[in-house]
Amino acid sequence: MNNIRVHTESPYEILVGSGLLRSCGQEITKVHAPCRAAIITDDTVDSLYGAQTEASLRAAGYQVCKFVFAHGERSKCLQTALDAYEMLTANGISRSDLIVALGGGVVGDLAGFVAATYLRGVDFVQIPTTFLAAIDSSVGGKTAVDIPSGKNLVGAFWQPKQVICDTDTLSTLSEEIFSEGTAEAIKYGAILDESLYRLLASGGLSSHLEEVICRCVDLKRMLVEEDERDRGSRQLLNFGHTLGHCVETLSGYTVPHGRAVAIGMAMITRVSESLGLTPAGTTQDLLSVLDTYRLPSQYEGATVQQFCQVALGDKKRHGDSLTVVLLERIGKAVLHPIPLSELESFLSHAWN
Amino acid sequence: MNNIRVHTESPYEILVGSGLLRSCGQEITKVHAPCRAAIITDDTVDSLYGAQTEASLRAAGYQVCKFVFAHGERSKCLQTALDAYEMLTANGISRSDLIVALGGGVVGDLAGFVAATYLRGVDFVQIPTTFLAAIDSSVGGKTAVDIPSGKNLVGAFWQPKQVICDTDTLSTLSEEIFSEGTAEAIKYGAILDESLYRLLASGGLSSHLEEVICRCVDLKRMLVEEDERDRGSRQLLNFGHTLGHCVETLSGYTVPHGRAVAIGMAMITRVSESLGLTPAGTTQDLLSVLDTYRLPSQYEGATVQQFCQVALGDKKRHGDSLTVVLLERIGKAVLHPIPLSELESFLSHAWN
Repeated sequence: MNNIRVHTESPYEILVGSGLLRSCGQEITKVHAPCRAAIITDDTVDSLYGAQTEASLRAAGYQVCKFVFAHGERSKCLQTALDAYEMLTANGISRSDLIVALGGGVVGDLAGFVAATYLRGVDFVQIPTTFLAAIDSSVGGKTAVDIPSGKNLVGAFWQPKQVICDTDTLSTLSEEIFSEGTAEAIKYGAILDESLYRLLASGGLSSHLEEVICRCVDLKRMLVEEDERDRGSRQLLNFGHTLGHCVETLSGYTVPHGRAVAIGMAMITRVSESLGLTPAGTTQDLLSVLDTYRLPSQYEGATVQQFCQVALGDKKRHGDSLTVVLLERIGKAVLHPIPLSELESFLSHAWN
Repeated sequence: MNNIRVHTESPYEILVGSGLLRSCGQEITKVHAPCRAAIITDDTVDSLYGAQTEASLRAAGYQVCKFVFAHGERSKCLQTALDAYEMLTANGISRSDLIVALGGGVVGDLAGFVAATYLRGVDFVQIPTTFLAAIDSSVGGKTAVDIPSGKNLVGAFWQPKQVICDTDTLSTLSEEIFSEGTAEAIKYGAILDESLYRLLASGGLSSHLEEVICRCVDLKRMLVEEDERDRGSRQLLNFGHTLGHCVETLSGYTVPHGRAVAIGMAMITRVSESLGLTPAGTTQDLLSVLDTYRLPSQYEGATVQQFCQVALGDKKRHGDSLTVVLLERIGKAVLHPIPLSELESFLSHAWN
């Protein structure tokens, strides 16, 4: 088992290893004494891991209740949060009790938001069961729900007390869901760690999965420690995300997050290479890695004007400028603010 | 003008004085440079002070938009928050912009919750326009919405950047709304400051209003600084609130907050005096002050069993005990945890 400690305002550990779910209750006692524990999960994950998680918590002395919602991004909304709050009050969950988020990114974001806001904040533990959640959303304390006008527009910073990643759970993922995480792993390499990028470029992901998870989590740890509230260097993690979010929105969420980020990374790198801000050949290098893992690099369904319109609603906009992330080279990213008045001409290079 | 500085994690100032609304835009520039500013208010307050606030903000260089909702506790819910989020995105409010909460406790709690969660948190300023909001809800960073199973069960800690209390706005309050604040002022005296209590007991509120506001705010400042997250001494502010919340809930919110707190203070003091935890005569002393300001001290509409049932859902419950606040004497309060199994017999003394 690997153990990565995150030194945020309230520090916590990320455990990564095979078979951890069986002993999750015991692990959780190290950060929160037995109490009432509310599992929040979706129907897919519940059918695979709900019973095992519940049994482990009970064996460790917790009184367990469970809230299960329909899987999918559409459930990540205030109505589901309200249903969860009502279930928590009905089960007598108090401020000194615990929420356990069991599932992928949607579960983690929603359960985290519920934990951040129920009774103005209760402790929670993340048990990510997808590759994407393991290396991205379960670490760093960003919680969110979607509203009709956009994804993740409502949320809070709320750090988990512990993250437990059982690598065995990743074996039940479909190739498509697994490749979601691959896009984010490539992102970590591209922005911060050329050797990780080269490992992935060589097709070494499946044979080095636990190592890749730990390296990604450790890179995220570093940025979150530097900038817990996402006002500076943590924004590097948004590489591919500004345009990726546009793809998600413009496709009506039919393009899932990881694939949208793959497209976003390719598009923004095409822009920055065109403008001489990224070395020639970088886009081709990136396209080739994405292709190795059958990730897309283009979205034909919208115009540059449509992208701009969606990007204006991005959380990363500050007043009259928008900050995007560009590759100075593979392994090093920089923040690049663009005046909103120049956004369309800037992005149009992705269509060249 | 009085100026009280609150040293929370992110410090801020509370300005109290006559005529401050006219210059609120100018005051706000001292804590947040001109940007897009979204006023959140209710229809009652909007008709009285909306135009003046908007004009002052515009004159100081802000671009202003406004969200107005129907007044009353029923609006303090997730649906109103969602409507507010959508208005903020429609008006292009970004992370570096500002929310201005203009109104009483409902407005401040709701607008504060929206500010805490929109884009994971944007700056906000409180402009309380009721006596109750001025001395209580606008200071200390507690934000909340209600859900069907209870009041204030969802929220966040989110400190304002500034609180601007124009004492002139209190002159438009009905006697009933004004007396809401009186109950909280009596509470501050009872728990922390015997000389404030005696000033109020002598009927001196109207002739010393600005002084009373400043003393109450300063007492709250002290507790919030000691215990920003409400895990210790700040809980003293809940004197009268555990049973007060029960009265609000059991009456279907027909008994307003301040009057419910008056009843709650009288009930819990009757209990503690019966048990010898509070000096003999204290209840009578308190009843006499409440009567001076025509505040109620009894609620006939529910049994001790019904109170217990509601109290079990209180945010102040920790696992299997509930902490109530008792008067050691007038001017000094203490926290008193009660095992849930003893709650009914404890509270039954209020019915003796």
